[in-house]
Amino acid sequence: MPFLALNLLGSGVPLSMLCAAIGLVFAFVLIGIVKRASAGNERMRQISSAVQEGAKAYLNRQVVTISVIAVIIFLLLFIFKDHPTAIGFIIGAFCSLSAGFIGMRVAVIANVRTTQAATTSITHALRMAFNGGAVTGLLVVGLALLSVSIFYVFANRTVGHDMAIKSLVGLALGASLISVFARLGGGIYTKAADVGADLVGKIEQGFEEDDPRNPATIADNVGDNVGDCAGMAADVFETYAVSLIGAILVGSLTLAGSPAAIIYPFVLGGISVLGAICGVLFVNFAKGKPAGVLMGGVLTSAIISAILFWPATHYLFPDGITIGGATRSPTQLYFASLIGLVMTAVVVAITNYYTSMRYSPVQKIARASETGHATNIIAGLAVGQHATALPVGFIGIAILLSFHFAGLYGIAIAVMSMLSMSGIIISLDSFGPITDNAGGVAVMSNLPKEVRAVTDQLDAVGNTMKAVTKGYAIASAGLAALVLFGSYVEELKAHNPAFAQFTFSLTEPKVVIGLFLGGLLPFIFTAFSMDAVGKAAGAVVREVRRQIKAKPGILTGQDTPEYGTCVDIVTKAALREMIVPALLPLVFVVAVALIKPLGPVVLGGLLVGTIVTGLFVAIAMTSGGGAWDNAKKFIEEGNLGGKGSFAHQAAVTGDTVGDPYKDTAGPAINPMIKVVNIVAILIIPIFF
Amino acid sequence: MPFLALNLLGSGVPLSMLCAAIGLVFAFVLIGIVKRASAGNERMRQISSAVQEGAKAYLNRQVVTISVIAVIIFLLLFIFKDHPTAIGFIIGAFCSLSAGFIGMRVAVIANVRTTQAATTSITHALRMAFNGGAVTGLLVVGLALLSVSIFYVFANRTVGHDMAIKSLVGLALGASLISVFARLGGGIYTKAADVGADLVGKIEQGFEEDDPRNPATIADNVGDNVGDCAGMAADVFETYAVSLIGAILVGSLTLAGSPAAIIYPFVLGGISVLGAICGVLFVNFAKGKPAGVLMGGVLTSAIISAILFWPATHYLFPDGITIGGATRSPTQLYFASLIGLVMTAVVVAITNYYTSMRYSPVQKIARASETGHATNIIAGLAVGQHATALPVGFIGIAILLSFHFAGLYGIAIAVMSMLSMSGIIISLDSFGPITDNAGGVAVMSNLPKEVRAVTDQLDAVGNTMKAVTKGYAIASAGLAALVLFGSYVEELKAHNPAFAQFTFSLTEPKVVIGLFLGGLLPFIFTAFSMDAVGKAAGAVVREVRRQIKAKPGILTGQDTPEYGTCVDIVTKAALREMIVPALLPLVFVVAVALIKPLGPVVLGGLLVGTIVTGLFVAIAMTSGGGAWDNAKKFIEEGNLGGKGSFAHQAAVTGDTVGDPYKDTAGPAINPMIKVVNIVAILIIPIFF
Repeated sequence: MPFLALNLLGSGVPLSMLCAAIGLVFAFVLIGIVKRASAGNERMRQISSAVQEGAKAYLNRQVVTISVIAVIIFLLLFIFKDHPTAIGFIIGAFCSLSAGFIGMRVAVIANVRTTQAATTSITHALRMAFNGGAVTGLLVVGLALLSVSIFYVFANRTVGHDMAIKSLVGLALGASLISVFARLGGGIYTKAADVGADLVGKIEQGFEEDDPRNPATIADNVGDNVGDCAGMAADVFETYAVSLIGAILVGSLTLAGSPAAIIYPFVLGGISVLGAICGVLFVNFAKGKPAGVLMGGVLTSAIISAILFWPATHYLFPDGITIGGATRSPTQLYFASLIGLVMTAVVVAITNYYTSMRYSPVQKIARASETGHATNIIAGLAVGQHATALPVGFIGIAILLSFHFAGLYGIAIAVMSMLSMSGIIISLDSFGPITDNAGGVAVMSNLPKEVRAVTDQLDAVGNTMKAVTKGYAIASAGLAALVLFGSYVEELKAHNPAFAQFTFSLTEPKVVIGLFLGGLLPFIFTAFSMDAVGKAAGAVVREVRRQIKAKPGILTGQDTPEYGTCVDIVTKAALREMIVPALLPLVFVVAVALIKPLGPVVLGGLLVGTIVTGLFVAIAMTSGGGAWDNAKKFIEEGNLGGKGSFAHQAAVTGDTVGDPYKDTAGPAINPMIKVVNIVAILIIPIFF
Repeated sequence: MPFLALNLLGSGVPLSMLCAAIGLVFAFVLIGIVKRASAGNERMRQISSAVQEGAKAYLNRQVVTISVIAVIIFLLLFIFKDHPTAIGFIIGAFCSLSAGFIGMRVAVIANVRTTQAATTSITHALRMAFNGGAVTGLLVVGLALLSVSIFYVFANRTVGHDMAIKSLVGLALGASLISVFARLGGGIYTKAADVGADLVGKIEQGFEEDDPRNPATIADNVGDNVGDCAGMAADVFETYAVSLIGAILVGSLTLAGSPAAIIYPFVLGGISVLGAICGVLFVNFAKGKPAGVLMGGVLTSAIISAILFWPATHYLFPDGITIGGATRSPTQLYFASLIGLVMTAVVVAITNYYTSMRYSPVQKIARASETGHATNIIAGLAVGQHATALPVGFIGIAILLSFHFAGLYGIAIAVMSMLSMSGIIISLDSFGPITDNAGGVAVMSNLPKEVRAVTDQLDAVGNTMKAVTKGYAIASAGLAALVLFGSYVEELKAHNPAFAQFTFSLTEPKVVIGLFLGGLLPFIFTAFSMDAVGKAAGAVVREVRRQIKAKPGILTGQDTPEYGTCVDIVTKAALREMIVPALLPLVFVVAVALIKPLGPVVLGGLLVGTIVTGLFVAIAMTSGGGAWDNAKKFIEEGNLGGKGSFAHQAAVTGDTVGDPYKDTAGPAINPMIKVVNIVAILIIPIFF
């Protein structure tokens, strides 16, 4: 398809690559700004480097473990599939791992500098933490856009267009699978350390958060970096790459290779990099309350994108495009892309309502804490479930409208436009763990209370931002997975003529069985993930108790705890415990494909079933967890008896339950849903 | 269709009615046996009658509240639908309410007699409690079989066969809707009283369970009767009636009114009444451990049914029957009916594994309690989710096999055969609250410790039995709802030619939106239910605190608490709080039907979506709740530190969280799923 190749090189894709490159350059400028800031006094630098070393050590070992699995899958693909797919897989896996590394590296540089900045002013600290996050945001998005486009252009030239499209699925699998591991490994690490540190430290010994006497405190801070930074960066890289690839797939499958349809998603991505840069600049120059400034950054970014999408859409589709037998005007396509931007705003606003301490859901949990642990838990579980209603309702509306505007391609465009906002959204998300760590450094370095007050204030904002971006990631994952399911059906029809007229009807028992089996996946996946956190946290609890028993001087500050053994124990536990849940979706899909009475029809139902329950379970877990966390913070601010009260104890229990919910099991559903769908697409030619 | 009417009267249906009548007679014989037993000393009779009065007072007020709603819906049906449907509705509603009343009346007679029997031997107490439960079991099944068959025969004669079939849907709606109210009202009552009593009594004041100094203790015991007995009886009546009606619907819709296909479900029901009687006799004459004897009763019942199904199937279908273009042999139909019996055994065994303290899941929760409240909760949530895997897997197999044997009719037959086991299964379920109350009476009457030891032992068995029968109810509800969805599709196609070729394909966005909206329903339904328990329990906590403050002599036993005010407060709170969640599914379905861009296609997806997530949420909640409860009992038996230990406190928290899970929200999903499906069928001619 030389015409296509020419066209691609001559217009949209190179421009998008240029935008991605601009984003990367801007990120490097930000790194320079962050690095030039003061890293504080000796003690602060010591703590910061202990955290850095723990995080690096963990990530190195995680890379080794994951690489073994990646190489096995690479070989399987190389032998049973084709070479371009296998190569795509390894590139996706490599980039996903790199994204995680970048996220972590930048965060550990930014956190101590945020603490130092907090000694001057809250605005200064806010910008430092945000810029650290923005580096990750821009690097991840730039990397995703560049890797997909370079791989696509290169594969297009060497193995032809059809094969290039197929091998992109390999890249998507590499990104998603690694992301499941990173999310789980990092998530188990961070929450095992956090829960373990809290259970012995706060509840048994009455330590404050980040008390240097707690042997698990360095591990806890390492966890924030490997889970919330590295895990999240890999996750968003994956979501972005898969959404882009999904849009390309739908564009090429259903529109018979119209070049504009394939170029359009790249262009949306490129434009939004520029939008994200404007958003970052806004935060760096605006003044006001932290939450308001951050939301202003998102809004700026969305408005710039919305304005630039208009001429781009009209330029690419001057005469519209024919989809499903009807001609769709460029304005209709533009509307589909707007839906993605609006969905971002809507999901952010809804999650903010359910997880910010300013609104009734969090306050309801806080009040329920007054009657004890159990009522706190019941209230939190209920809030999490309530929080699913509005996002799912709006996802329904988004599907209806974007399909109305441009069929399945419309949904794909809406998803891509939603994901194009990742640059600015991850900047917010990374903000959370950076401020969390900044607070840790402040306490461990015995900085004055006022500094901790500043970091605490930013930390509460960070909690909500983290919940908000998780809601965003999951909503977009649900939509992206639907696009992948559409590709699965098209691929199956194209591959096996027996399914040419097949409709995956709900009246077909095999489809219903598939829905059940797929619906099961998020339930057992999260059950295994929570078990994993429980086991790893138990190991931390035993180690902390052992140290305190062996050296009672730790409690009085006379003995220094051995931070390193805790870091080591969590590292081993996290790597061991992540394997089963991470491989579960892969094994599940292959098993359904292999078992004769099940096969492709059950598998189709399974894909949708996983999306349906996955969406609910993920939103309920991440929103519920965020709400529990801020209910505790609400009490700690002095409400309902404040710190140390009976209500506070109950709120700590809720927060601890919420930890694996919001930081391990819940967010890992996001890449898991996509692994399931991508593996299904990949195995069509092998099994069916 | 006079031929059909003649045939019906000449063979299976009257025989089934005879079996139902035999069941009722046997139940009355059992009532005589129970009543003749000693009701113990003066104090025991006093307590028992206080519980009886509270329960009666609550149920009377619940009847008034529900009647108002029932009359409104009756009028709506009378005006907008047809008169037979409206009459069917009111009959279903009346019978469902009656079933609840019967269940409660018998239980309050049996509980004090079980306490008295426990003073002689455990076998004696076991039989007394079981016979009390068996009365409910046989009465509910007999009532369901008789009411459906009499209504059907009568309607068949007066308004003709087609109309009779349609009006049966009205009866199903009456039964289901009332059952949602009874389950929720009773469930909120029992758990608000239980949680309220535990929070102040056990945790704040250190009372034992059923301590007469606790002002909420009578309300707690009343709750067992109105929730676990009355609510459950209404629920199973509904499940039985709806499964029978579903099978008749499928029989008449897809098989063009073959009389044998309609008679067959009645015959299965009739035969199993005889099986249930044999099971009851087994328990009354066998010796051994309580759990073993009870399971022996179930097995006896299943074997008798399995043997008698064979000649009945061959007699009704001597030449087989044509379904979906293929002739199905009587042996194939027999196999479909066997699947229902096997599924009963399988679900019972699986739930037993996850909720009995003899196996690792419960012990894992108990061990997790050693590290605190939060780890107990995380472990319990994970166990509940794990517990969904096997039942859902087996439901998948059951669907696959029964559809293979006889299409949708095969599934309907499997469901009916599963439900035909209700007689013996409810006997087990009712056993739980009777022994629970028997223990309460023992403590409040200051009977010797040995008596309480006997009732405690039976109570632990009762906990597992309650969880087991809930698993059974929900698995059968999922299958029954699928049958109803099949009827919805057939009805829609028959009613509106525009849908004659429509397939409810997963590639249709409206179907996916329907799946999302339907998937949402169990999440928000249970969230509202848990909120309701939380609010009502809060009211109890405040009242108990008020009484203890006003009369400190209560704590020393010098003052007698005012039990009546607690009963009154829970009564009002339960009735107020049940309205919103109970009407939610009804309103949701009508809204989807009314909103133009949604309509029948989205509604179809919604029905399946509700079944899919409903099944998972319900199993996770009921199994998780049962496991939490028995983890606490496991510790109370002296393991891991025993009563009063840190682990025990954490286990009490888990049990309290599990309370609304397993006794309010979880089991109410069962009738809710069916209300959604039945309402959808009913509104087809009105809206589409």
